[in-house]
Amino acid sequence: MQFELTREFVEKLKDLISLENAEEVKGLIDGLHPADIAETMEELSLEEAKYIYLLLDGETASDVLIEIPEHDRKKFLKILPPEFIARQFIEYMESDDAADIVGELDEEVQQEVLKEIGDIEQAGDIVDLLEYDEESAGGIMAKELVSVNENLTVQACLKQISEQSEEVDEIYYVYVVDDADILKGILSLKKLILAKTNMKISNLYNDDIKSVTTEAPQEEVANKMEKYDLVAIPVVDSIGRLKGRITIDDVVDIIREEAEKDYQMVSGITGDVESSDKVWQLTRARIPWLFIGLLGGILGALVIGNHNETLTQLPKMAFFIPLIAAMAGNVGVQSSSIVVQSIASGAKDIESISHKLLKEFAIALITAFVFAVLIYIFNYFYSRDSMQLTWAVAVSLFIVIVFASLFGTLIPLLLNKLKIDPALATGPFITTMNDILGLFIYLVVGNIFLNLF
Amino acid sequence: MQFELTREFVEKLKDLISLENAEEVKGLIDGLHPADIAETMEELSLEEAKYIYLLLDGETASDVLIEIPEHDRKKFLKILPPEFIARQFIEYMESDDAADIVGELDEEVQQEVLKEIGDIEQAGDIVDLLEYDEESAGGIMAKELVSVNENLTVQACLKQISEQSEEVDEIYYVYVVDDADILKGILSLKKLILAKTNMKISNLYNDDIKSVTTEAPQEEVANKMEKYDLVAIPVVDSIGRLKGRITIDDVVDIIREEAEKDYQMVSGITGDVESSDKVWQLTRARIPWLFIGLLGGILGALVIGNHNETLTQLPKMAFFIPLIAAMAGNVGVQSSSIVVQSIASGAKDIESISHKLLKEFAIALITAFVFAVLIYIFNYFYSRDSMQLTWAVAVSLFIVIVFASLFGTLIPLLLNKLKIDPALATGPFITTMNDILGLFIYLVVGNIFLNLF
Repeated sequence: MQFELTREFVEKLKDLISLENAEEVKGLIDGLHPADIAETMEELSLEEAKYIYLLLDGETASDVLIEIPEHDRKKFLKILPPEFIARQFIEYMESDDAADIVGELDEEVQQEVLKEIGDIEQAGDIVDLLEYDEESAGGIMAKELVSVNENLTVQACLKQISEQSEEVDEIYYVYVVDDADILKGILSLKKLILAKTNMKISNLYNDDIKSVTTEAPQEEVANKMEKYDLVAIPVVDSIGRLKGRITIDDVVDIIREEAEKDYQMVSGITGDVESSDKVWQLTRARIPWLFIGLLGGILGALVIGNHNETLTQLPKMAFFIPLIAAMAGNVGVQSSSIVVQSIASGAKDIESISHKLLKEFAIALITAFVFAVLIYIFNYFYSRDSMQLTWAVAVSLFIVIVFASLFGTLIPLLLNKLKIDPALATGPFITTMNDILGLFIYLVVGNIFLNLF
Repeated sequence: MQFELTREFVEKLKDLISLENAEEVKGLIDGLHPADIAETMEELSLEEAKYIYLLLDGETASDVLIEIPEHDRKKFLKILPPEFIARQFIEYMESDDAADIVGELDEEVQQEVLKEIGDIEQAGDIVDLLEYDEESAGGIMAKELVSVNENLTVQACLKQISEQSEEVDEIYYVYVVDDADILKGILSLKKLILAKTNMKISNLYNDDIKSVTTEAPQEEVANKMEKYDLVAIPVVDSIGRLKGRITIDDVVDIIREEAEKDYQMVSGITGDVESSDKVWQLTRARIPWLFIGLLGGILGALVIGNHNETLTQLPKMAFFIPLIAAMAGNVGVQSSSIVVQSIASGAKDIESISHKLLKEFAIALITAFVFAVLIYIFNYFYSRDSMQLTWAVAVSLFIVIVFASLFGTLIPLLLNKLKIDPALATGPFITTMNDILGLFIYLVVGNIFLNLF
């Protein structure tokens, strides 16, 4: 019952598949949860996975298909005929999953699959859902839900639920609507079970409902459900008509994906990769940011080349180049990631940008002062012979930390204002920019102190 | 109904509180969701927040208290007498929230609060829960749940549910147990509603249950609920007796927290801070990693100082110090964060460590080759006068990228084996280490090429 994926299990399965022993393969995977089958399939080749798919019943096969990662699924759907996709997968799915799958297909295949769907109402639902932006509430909602008219009695309501509930996996709330299908409130199953059968729904439901509109971005949906601890949220159109509902399991996936995206951005990885991906996928995900880093390094070399006479006069300045660059980079990443995280968490923030910058300025001044003093003390002993160097390193470290902090805060805020993902400003981008800025400041300040003393 | 926090609202509230106009303050916050009141309170001073608390009824006050961030709550609980905490907050809470709050109090205050709780059974539940590790399933579960004996009929079951359900906020599943309280299966409310009243529970329930034991770490709970799309999961002891249940809203918080922790780690921030925190809190969170960066920079200066003769003979080598250091840092962060993320996602991974390292080695070789060639081409034109430099930079960049990748992969894997949070190895730590390593390799290789040509 508690499945654990082991290398032995995968090996055994691969052997049985290569022997085309359908009976024993079935025996191994029978009774496994679709999520476990999906996890197992990720360890198999495309052909091996296909072999298993053909052994599964439609219900299980469609559940497994939803659980495997998108890029594997796309490859897999490519090798299957449209009528198989429609009959073996789509017809068993709830509308949100079905729309996701259809949306992943090529334009022409989409049309063919839609034509092959037997249930015209389901095909209509899918077409409706495909019209919404993929990352909006409309794009992630399911159309299947249990709704009842506010004028019904509990008894009539229970009857209606039993009719509607066949196509819904799990009921968390019953939605109450008026004659125009406008959402009026929600009713928990608990309340319904405990109520007398002749009571009217209008006297039972809770009208303090949290809902989202179809256009709401998915992050807003996630933040709302998280804030109000909701298991499902109804989706309404602009005049309040009930259009669908979003359940927490989809939102958990969104929260995880958003967090992973920001994490990968700050670590300089492009695209959605996992350690189990192929070598070339992982390499491709890493090269773009490294290339920017290389350009930054070349620019840095040019900056130093331009100030070569300073280094010639005070060669020991080269010793502290890595220190200045590293501090600039670290400070910048810290500042930017605090901003990005506060934007991502969706925490309502009534601090103005100027207030934020002012605060960051205060933090920067304290930090800069602390580290400038520390490095001054170090150099006071280590570089006794050159007070010019001691002063140049300390003063430029101070300036560098202040600038790196302000840039790190300002750039993601600006990107956000411009509706560009602020997470772009974290990681290698801000590090590289601050590296160069830091070098420039260091060499200019060094030059000033050379001429001062 | 859809509340939005504005600066005007907060200003108005502050004014009314300073005028001690209880009537109008109540009017403003009445009907707001506890999560909205909590959000508003974060903008108020401790005294202002206290004023509002005293106006709230116990039910709302306790819901608000759970919603505010832990460090604010701790400060707030410090200024309240134990009997107030027990009577106004704890008695209205479910056991998991109550145990969290009591767990946050100082040892002596804890005892006093427990004594003041009127319901001895609730006090017992809290004491039971406090014995579990805070980050285990036992530590996050609630004891309130609806369970029925497998031998009951649907009718008897419904009656028992209505008795038990008073103390449970929301019922998602009914747990079915045998006479020894061993968990046998679950029953969805949907099935219960649709079943005939004289049917036996033992014929209705689903025995394919996912559960966790009380000792399971919270990450395992989160991964399991996410993988199997569960809204609630039962918690059992080592012999399978039903002990409690964990609901998805608590797990969503855990997923968010874990992701934020890893994100802050990779960006070099210590402790749980938000952009809205005070200047000194934010500064304190940033200084530790910067200090390590500073030590790294100083070590870097010493490494360069030790190889000073190489720089004196080939001064242009200094130009490429930032490039080498930056590439080493970026590559290391990329490698480590891919490993950390795969560990955190809990994705079952049957690749062995040696296989991972081999794969990383392949990625590193390709990446290193690409960038070594690029920088060779650049220097072929830019540093025409010195083929020594051109070769030294390209060859050391190659070696540095390979080493940085392997370290970046190996260190988090090792930390994980040693049961230390592998996220510690991302961000400034790996950057700093790789900076120094990179410098060392660069100068040694430079020296070799100086003597070769």
